[in-house]
Amino acid sequence: MGEGLALGIDIGATNFRLGLVSSDGVVLERRMEGVGRDRSARGIVSQVERCAAAVGYNGVVGVGIGVPGIVDPSCGVVYRSPHYPKWLNEPVKEMFEDTLGLPVVLDNDANMAASGEGWRGAASGMDNFIMITLGTGVGGGIVCGGRLFRGEKGFTGEIGHMVVDFDGPSCACGGRGCLETYTSASGIPNILGRLGEGDRRRIIDAAGGDVSSVTPRLLYELAKGGDPSSSLAWRWFGRYLGVGIASLVNVTGIFNIVIGGGISRAWDCFISHLEDEMKKRLYKESASFVRIVQASLLDDAGILGGANEVFKS
Amino acid sequence: MGEGLALGIDIGATNFRLGLVSSDGVVLERRMEGVGRDRSARGIVSQVERCAAAVGYNGVVGVGIGVPGIVDPSCGVVYRSPHYPKWLNEPVKEMFEDTLGLPVVLDNDANMAASGEGWRGAASGMDNFIMITLGTGVGGGIVCGGRLFRGEKGFTGEIGHMVVDFDGPSCACGGRGCLETYTSASGIPNILGRLGEGDRRRIIDAAGGDVSSVTPRLLYELAKGGDPSSSLAWRWFGRYLGVGIASLVNVTGIFNIVIGGGISRAWDCFISHLEDEMKKRLYKESASFVRIVQASLLDDAGILGGANEVFKS
Repeated sequence: MGEGLALGIDIGATNFRLGLVSSDGVVLERRMEGVGRDRSARGIVSQVERCAAAVGYNGVVGVGIGVPGIVDPSCGVVYRSPHYPKWLNEPVKEMFEDTLGLPVVLDNDANMAASGEGWRGAASGMDNFIMITLGTGVGGGIVCGGRLFRGEKGFTGEIGHMVVDFDGPSCACGGRGCLETYTSASGIPNILGRLGEGDRRRIIDAAGGDVSSVTPRLLYELAKGGDPSSSLAWRWFGRYLGVGIASLVNVTGIFNIVIGGGISRAWDCFISHLEDEMKKRLYKESASFVRIVQASLLDDAGILGGANEVFKS
Repeated sequence: MGEGLALGIDIGATNFRLGLVSSDGVVLERRMEGVGRDRSARGIVSQVERCAAAVGYNGVVGVGIGVPGIVDPSCGVVYRSPHYPKWLNEPVKEMFEDTLGLPVVLDNDANMAASGEGWRGAASGMDNFIMITLGTGVGGGIVCGGRLFRGEKGFTGEIGHMVVDFDGPSCACGGRGCLETYTSASGIPNILGRLGEGDRRRIIDAAGGDVSSVTPRLLYELAKGGDPSSSLAWRWFGRYLGVGIASLVNVTGIFNIVIGGGISRAWDCFISHLEDEMKKRLYKESASFVRIVQASLLDDAGILGGANEVFKS
């Protein structure tokens, strides 16, 4: 399937993005829609199909789809998705193939983003790299020898659920102290928990008094405006992410790290703290090889990754 | 190099083992010696050469050597070894090749043990597995598609230095809260630190009053004798190892885990706690696939792994 066009579809927690992509990696057309209220797999498949029909299938050789959740790419089943509780053992690949009448490649959204960054983004030319996506949760994808590393069932790269803190806060996965409990939008309250009472109070007050209103965006704006309390929060954020990356480097021996997802826009606020902490945790031989770069494709990563996996299949 | 004989050499912290291995994986002859007092790379190479000469090179097509430390298998340099502080950027592969006059494959000891277990041991027939060795420290090797997974420089599988406890105890690597700070012989004091004062005291008293005399062997014998305090210690040991394995499974998507090294002999004392804790930390989809087995080759794992890498090279 090396020629023609592909549809890349990136299904997020609340929206999906769809793009028509050429075989040289140009997004010729893109759409975004909020997911309808039903949120069943069947409902989303129908909605995506209408959107795809509006863009047109002319010359499309296949469709690459990233979904947030536990996916087995070999059989195309989504076992579970934290954002779509109705999805349980859904044969999503088959549903899309029946509806669209085209071959479908299905994978976890973070794996697709990794594939996209490796093709046309910040990891272009890197044979081995790890992609970390920082959003509501923390996702990951591992690329080895130019291909997504799949493990046995494809449940690889669940980087957000590496434990960095044995007795740490409860995680959505049922565990405790996972990386995601600190370095994601949902982990912000735990980051604030590492601050002194005064600093924490200042930030919560700036959010109108409610801790659940403290978003990464607000923390970013406060820090950019010179607020020292939110800079301290970013320091803790960077330190936890640095520990997570050190663990990843130690386990995988992969030295190129690409960080994307919405929170990566606050790069300047955390990168130096991340690197300092990571170096403390690595042998200097490893630390000297590590290269951490910001993802470059932003919202197109999943679309391009989906298309890349189609052209490579 | 698929035929003939190979020498497998496993250099440990205080001893080395050497074996003459047939291409079908039978150890025809084995030797063990304590490492001489000098402990320089040059000194150990000479000592191993004398031992190899005593066994004989007749029909030997190559030599596979595992060393404890940070090794780049592609260039055969040992960058550093915690147990051999004199070794700094030592071209150990070249030194052995010059001395023995045979092709040498050099790797980290835990990688070699993984290769051995995959060939003739508990992981025989497993295409994908992770080997964890529990000794003075914690080592690891990752096998994917039947071959050692190498990352970029070969510094893979440093499982002992995955951080499981952000603010945890100091580690020999310079970091804090690494898996090794709990689930190794050197981590025993930290495990005792998780017990109540009474339980800790009982165990230290049984060791003659000195915490540094509490060995895994003593803890094992106490637990086997029905001592509840040491059973509690094994519970903490198993819990930490369970967290480490959950993280590994989440990152790699590899479900077969082989546990070896001296402390694995205390299997019955920790395995149920390990599995309970691991299940708490994994999605049930992953947990249902995980299989944890005890290594079977014991002291021959490194010898057989070295030979296997020779025959595969």
